[in-house]
Amino acid sequence: MSEPVRPEARSPRGFVDRRARDLVAERRILTAVSAVYERYGFEPLETGAFEYADALGKFLPDADRPNEGVFALQDDDEQWMALRYDLTAPLARFAAQNWETLPKPFRRYAFGPVWRNEKPGPGRFREFVQCDADTVGSARPEADAEIIAMAAEGLQAAGLPAGSAVLKINNRKLLNGLMAAAGVADDAQKLAVLRAVDKLDRLGPDGVRLLLGEGRLDESGAFTKGAGLNAAAAERVLAFTAAGVGGRSETLTKLADVVGGSAEGDAGLAELEAIDRALTGLGVGVDRAVIEPSVVRGLEYYTGPVFEAELLLQTTDEKGQPIRFGSVGGGGRYDDLVARFTGQPVPATGFSFGVSRLASALRAAGRDLAAEVRGPVVVIAFDQSRMADYFQVAGELRGAGVPAEVYLGASGMKAQMKYADRRLSPAAVIIGEDELAAGTVTIKDLDLGRELSSKVTDNAAWREQRPGQQTIARTEMVAAIRKILDARA
Amino acid sequence: MSEPVRPEARSPRGFVDRRARDLVAERRILTAVSAVYERYGFEPLETGAFEYADALGKFLPDADRPNEGVFALQDDDEQWMALRYDLTAPLARFAAQNWETLPKPFRRYAFGPVWRNEKPGPGRFREFVQCDADTVGSARPEADAEIIAMAAEGLQAAGLPAGSAVLKINNRKLLNGLMAAAGVADDAQKLAVLRAVDKLDRLGPDGVRLLLGEGRLDESGAFTKGAGLNAAAAERVLAFTAAGVGGRSETLTKLADVVGGSAEGDAGLAELEAIDRALTGLGVGVDRAVIEPSVVRGLEYYTGPVFEAELLLQTTDEKGQPIRFGSVGGGGRYDDLVARFTGQPVPATGFSFGVSRLASALRAAGRDLAAEVRGPVVVIAFDQSRMADYFQVAGELRGAGVPAEVYLGASGMKAQMKYADRRLSPAAVIIGEDELAAGTVTIKDLDLGRELSSKVTDNAAWREQRPGQQTIARTEMVAAIRKILDARA
Repeated sequence: MSEPVRPEARSPRGFVDRRARDLVAERRILTAVSAVYERYGFEPLETGAFEYADALGKFLPDADRPNEGVFALQDDDEQWMALRYDLTAPLARFAAQNWETLPKPFRRYAFGPVWRNEKPGPGRFREFVQCDADTVGSARPEADAEIIAMAAEGLQAAGLPAGSAVLKINNRKLLNGLMAAAGVADDAQKLAVLRAVDKLDRLGPDGVRLLLGEGRLDESGAFTKGAGLNAAAAERVLAFTAAGVGGRSETLTKLADVVGGSAEGDAGLAELEAIDRALTGLGVGVDRAVIEPSVVRGLEYYTGPVFEAELLLQTTDEKGQPIRFGSVGGGGRYDDLVARFTGQPVPATGFSFGVSRLASALRAAGRDLAAEVRGPVVVIAFDQSRMADYFQVAGELRGAGVPAEVYLGASGMKAQMKYADRRLSPAAVIIGEDELAAGTVTIKDLDLGRELSSKVTDNAAWREQRPGQQTIARTEMVAAIRKILDARA
Repeated sequence: MSEPVRPEARSPRGFVDRRARDLVAERRILTAVSAVYERYGFEPLETGAFEYADALGKFLPDADRPNEGVFALQDDDEQWMALRYDLTAPLARFAAQNWETLPKPFRRYAFGPVWRNEKPGPGRFREFVQCDADTVGSARPEADAEIIAMAAEGLQAAGLPAGSAVLKINNRKLLNGLMAAAGVADDAQKLAVLRAVDKLDRLGPDGVRLLLGEGRLDESGAFTKGAGLNAAAAERVLAFTAAGVGGRSETLTKLADVVGGSAEGDAGLAELEAIDRALTGLGVGVDRAVIEPSVVRGLEYYTGPVFEAELLLQTTDEKGQPIRFGSVGGGGRYDDLVARFTGQPVPATGFSFGVSRLASALRAAGRDLAAEVRGPVVVIAFDQSRMADYFQVAGELRGAGVPAEVYLGASGMKAQMKYADRRLSPAAVIIGEDELAAGTVTIKDLDLGRELSSKVTDNAAWREQRPGQQTIARTEMVAAIRKILDARA
């Protein structure tokens, strides 16, 4: 190891190290959600990190240039491969590759990291974990309904209490019907309308009206060019976006007034009606899933129903200001993604959420799933010649299911106690010559110590009292430790 | 989607798709092992997939050229980054980066994919999942003992029955002492000796003797040049490798005869003695951990104790021939890896195993952890206008914890039953007009059907009997399905 220059210990920008607290929260989410998805008959699938670049396609919302947005490299056979940027493109490749031998429809869920070669920022990483569920090979709107119901149940199982999140459902076909009804045929104008609609949450109807017409001047003085609709067409679009009030059938009736009559609009309405019926059969009420015509979703590969999961819980930012957390996941129907490979239409629909984002949402909602991550019981290394005895004690605790370890550093008593405290250990076990001779152990309740130390200021009195310290028979050790653990459970 | 050329649906060589059976087995292993590691006080850690290339170092056993063996690419700031090839190098980077704020010693475990840009082959992938546990910041041999005990317990928890695997322990310092005793000073000669020793399993003492001396002619007529030791030195090396018989202390006594006296040999012996004592304290007998001087381990970063987990169970190859499965994991002490960054010596030790390899070992040993992966109950889509009712039935089953789904393809009854059978569904639920009117359901026991169909050959009789088919009150559905599930549990 004679390297003249030492490498700096740092990781590439946008890649983070995750420690116990984050991981425990994320694992709990994935375990709970997987159980729900499996109850719905979805099987797990994991594909490799790399796909050939041509198989991935160019469906990233913010990437128009080739290789933009992905981590790509050339294999030794000169072919370009890239790390997956989502779990949908690899599923489409997998389904196309194995179509003949799969049970159809094919239901699968997957979770794992995805990679985006973008500019990292606060809360914006280049690697993050997604969790997806998809049904490939069913064109039925009931397949969408099933995904929606499952997503709602999954989010609840992950820790979002009933009423704290809602699935908002829309249909691209309805949006297309609206465009037809509003006389929009040009793709650029269509995009401008969708972008305006997507800002309803932030700007309200008046702001969106400006963006649908000539354009809008914001507070900073910047002007955004509008979609150029005439007043009647703009009002029609606004009426469309305003239809998402009341129950699902009520919304559908209102929508029929706005977009009914165009072939695509009618097809979209029929799909939403079937979704509504299936959701009712599944017991998913309007408290968990609504039809919301202002939902657009960025990805261009969606072809029919689209859905978005929104957190309704009031959360606060660092300054204590109430904020809307917004979307924690979404999905929709993508009927052409498998056909890219096979040439045969293979309908598909799915839902995806970001695991860290959901964990943040839960934390913001005051539901920290990992707040109680504890350290092990620390057996103090009192006497170097007695290490084997200490190991025996630690083994005894582990045998009873209690996490435990022997201190293995080089420091003295005081530092060892500090170490135990730093690890949030519930207790320390101290065994000196006296204890060994008498067949006893001394147990220090560190939970109690932490609790009391915030109240007691007199050091001398503290040492006198030795709060939470007891010397007991070795045979009673496990029971005493259990009592300490249970007191803080 | 107007691409003129359709991409081929295939994944890059050496990257595999893993489906339910493999994933269920791997997840069970990881869950069981994580529980053991946490009981030992190890906290989970996940680092990003990429590290800067200089931080990774060049410690791959088969890679001497820069970037050989890894997937590397240049970031937009021109820095080279590479996907991690193991979990040890990222830990060293993490420990160096956070040393000041970590509790010391720092114990962590991690699992996740690693990537090696090598030639793929049968059972040899370019992406595979490793599971590691390491202690950073303790120079004590007891830290090695703890890792060894934990590895043994972890493998057992993963499904390897007691007595089916053994941890073999050696010490690089002992090997160095042996070299000194045998008069080997030259690095190339040392490497030749280690390589010869590493072949003891395959060639036996006579073959190794030739490789330690002038060289060996194999059956194919190829000649391997030997290490060039004189006869006395070769016998000393062979005596060393033969010392691993009997109990741990017996082996240590024999080893003292061969390498005792050299400073490094004595240091190595003292470490192994401390490991032996700690293992005894932890209740790890010679059935689970032995001292085996022929263990070498490929990675050059090991500096002290090294260990290897070997499967003892007899397994058979495809032709039914008995084979030795060999190593399922290994590790050792690497005291210089963190110092690469900090310049300060930071001792560390760890153990690693390949998750898929362990799953293969378990399968080869007849312990298929996922043999029982079942499909969901399938509710047959008998009447298109009744989908909401079917969803309600499926929801009822899920509510009772039974995986269930409504068939959502476009095919008729026969294909639907075939689909249910293909998914290894325990049962199908059929609800037609009669059932709806009467408040009943018809349940088909597919497990029983599969069992009987191997015995009955008369199709007409089969249809007549309708084995395992029953029409019962809807209120009794869940209980009846449970009965079918329990019968095959």
